[in-house]
Amino acid sequence: MSKLIGNAIFGQSGGPTSVINASAAGVFTEALKQTGVIEKVYGAANGIVGILNEKFYDIGQEDPAELELLKTTPSSALGSCRYKLAKPEVDDTDYKRILEVFKKYNIRYFFYNGGNDSMDTCNKISKFIAKSGYECRVIGVPKTIDNDLFGTDHCPGFASAAKYIATTIMEVYLDARVYDSGMVTVIEIMGRNAGWLTAASVLAAHKGQGPDLIYLPEIDFDLDKMMADVKKVYDKEKKVIVAVSEGVKTSDGQYIPELVGEVSVDAFGHKQMGGTAPVLANYIKEKLGCKVRGIELSLMQRCAAHLASKQDVEESFLSGQTAVRIAIDGMTDYMVGFQRPETGDYKCEIKLIPLNDVANTEKIVPREWINAEGNFVNEKFVEYALPLIQGESKIAIEDGLPRFAKLKKVLVPKV
Amino acid sequence: MSKLIGNAIFGQSGGPTSVINASAAGVFTEALKQTGVIEKVYGAANGIVGILNEKFYDIGQEDPAELELLKTTPSSALGSCRYKLAKPEVDDTDYKRILEVFKKYNIRYFFYNGGNDSMDTCNKISKFIAKSGYECRVIGVPKTIDNDLFGTDHCPGFASAAKYIATTIMEVYLDARVYDSGMVTVIEIMGRNAGWLTAASVLAAHKGQGPDLIYLPEIDFDLDKMMADVKKVYDKEKKVIVAVSEGVKTSDGQYIPELVGEVSVDAFGHKQMGGTAPVLANYIKEKLGCKVRGIELSLMQRCAAHLASKQDVEESFLSGQTAVRIAIDGMTDYMVGFQRPETGDYKCEIKLIPLNDVANTEKIVPREWINAEGNFVNEKFVEYALPLIQGESKIAIEDGLPRFAKLKKVLVPKV
Repeated sequence: MSKLIGNAIFGQSGGPTSVINASAAGVFTEALKQTGVIEKVYGAANGIVGILNEKFYDIGQEDPAELELLKTTPSSALGSCRYKLAKPEVDDTDYKRILEVFKKYNIRYFFYNGGNDSMDTCNKISKFIAKSGYECRVIGVPKTIDNDLFGTDHCPGFASAAKYIATTIMEVYLDARVYDSGMVTVIEIMGRNAGWLTAASVLAAHKGQGPDLIYLPEIDFDLDKMMADVKKVYDKEKKVIVAVSEGVKTSDGQYIPELVGEVSVDAFGHKQMGGTAPVLANYIKEKLGCKVRGIELSLMQRCAAHLASKQDVEESFLSGQTAVRIAIDGMTDYMVGFQRPETGDYKCEIKLIPLNDVANTEKIVPREWINAEGNFVNEKFVEYALPLIQGESKIAIEDGLPRFAKLKKVLVPKV
Repeated sequence: MSKLIGNAIFGQSGGPTSVINASAAGVFTEALKQTGVIEKVYGAANGIVGILNEKFYDIGQEDPAELELLKTTPSSALGSCRYKLAKPEVDDTDYKRILEVFKKYNIRYFFYNGGNDSMDTCNKISKFIAKSGYECRVIGVPKTIDNDLFGTDHCPGFASAAKYIATTIMEVYLDARVYDSGMVTVIEIMGRNAGWLTAASVLAAHKGQGPDLIYLPEIDFDLDKMMADVKKVYDKEKKVIVAVSEGVKTSDGQYIPELVGEVSVDAFGHKQMGGTAPVLANYIKEKLGCKVRGIELSLMQRCAAHLASKQDVEESFLSGQTAVRIAIDGMTDYMVGFQRPETGDYKCEIKLIPLNDVANTEKIVPREWINAEGNFVNEKFVEYALPLIQGESKIAIEDGLPRFAKLKKVLVPKV
């Protein structure tokens, strides 16, 4: 196959993770090596929005040491977006514009890093460009703490969030046992539709210092059943830790804050919906009459690079690196995915998944990994997740604090 | 001086920290070495409550490797309490009981680990025992993330919480900048009366990735002034990070949730007071009309052993070790404190402070370390705090997760 010579662009999309920039480092360092094939390496500012606006950075001008630091720098270094493209058959304005920009800047390689929505975007762009006859290779690089991308064993970003969640719960478990008195701790974990992250709390339980009850969005939530579960543990142990997904809802679609009916009224008289953890904590407190603390792991679970899984950092880097290599080899219209050997020790193997297959299919926690009662996760999940959180990422430290990458972000002059 | 031969007891009191067990490790390992002087080493279950109830553990039966792991295990391994002794002149029942227990178990060394209230307890017991004529050496071992103990340069536990706060804010700072749209992030930090921990957020700003505004309880809070501060930063930067102490209040004593008037009504119709972060976040959202996220660092800031300061771990251990050594040398009625050289590089030096001087005096952040406007902390605080957060504590890892100490907790048979 003849070499496709031209420029490459990489963009980050959707919510960030602790290791999203490790994929960026993989793409950038590999692309910069491809002299004679890839001429310029660009980073799109705020994903697809930066392409539409012709706002991208010249990565070749970055200090290689800073690109190396991207491996351990959380959050999207280039900026992200949640911009949703219309279906091309309804409105193809954006697609035409993207094609125009790609032609103008001779972009022949497009790497897009994100979750479900971003892979959908990537797929649509890939198809539109292919149909236009302009040669440009399009590869999706997976990224999502939610771990809900179809076709891949797991997603870069998930393991580091899982490691943060399990470690933090182990620490909170000890803290919550300090006093002799009864106490319930409710820990709210991200994941609107898929319970992978909440399920990761079981890794702490596997070490004997974890939650007593785990509620995933995969199971219809029943408030009375949950109260009975909590009471049962409380009566026996006087200490209860509940891990609950922000996304749990009843069979008729009510989320916890709606269900418990807690609505706060602010200084303007406007109603505010509370978060799952505080609302559920208040509810349990009223019912049990004991001390209850609600904890939201909030942004920390997706940005705690200091506690990232080394395995995850390396795999994220690998996914970016692989995207460049396969594109150079002539492949297009794929997402880089992972698989593990069917038997034996865990090993991360690359698996290419057609973008068509990935787009808009959400992978949820299998029912058989959740106990019959629907309030805990079993050993199958532990076997799955444990290999992914191995190893401690060593972040660069300066003066006792993280030294994160500082990019120059030199803008590419508009043509 | 003739040797005082007998048994030693150590208790933990008040809220736990990431490194409180490092002090326990210091006391235990040092006391166990003192053969011929200290015969038995006991750990009181739940502090003074365990002494009153004759519930203590025989530390000599613990595996030395597990005692070593205490250095990196967060929370109170022996359990803690918030039991407040009456003034002995009002009711000396508890004191008589403690003296009785000490005599019964031949306890000649009493080490008590805690903050302000615990040092007060320690002081009262010390004075009562001295007056009784029973020879028992009493030494306080400091501990508090709040850093508000009088007479010592700083307190074990503070630096690790400070390191957690600064690191986490640096990570959140990057996360909060991912999208192109405006956003305010409100981060609530512990410290009811003293703003040391909230001030530690400035360490992140010192690295260029920290809060724009810092509100300490040392300064009377003014909601309108804060809104003007936030608006000013928002109009310029579109991104604002606010670090706020849970303890900030107006000149007439109103805390933020009272002030903003946000009261939530739960399913039972009962009013619930919101936390500072969500309440303030809602308020700012209404006023500015942009996205606002409230984050509570909750228990994590005091139990994140995985992110402890090595300096703090070592100093905490040293404080426990020193307590035993000076007691053996004949000293009593002191708290082990720290000082640093007046000039030159930071070095942790031991300073003994009479318990009388420590008890019930709260140390707050000096006014001259806070800017004139009262909405930020200056370089003097950075100079003070930076040496304390140096070094990364290496926690033991097993299977990618922390391996915390597991004590056997063999109960001493009641006499």
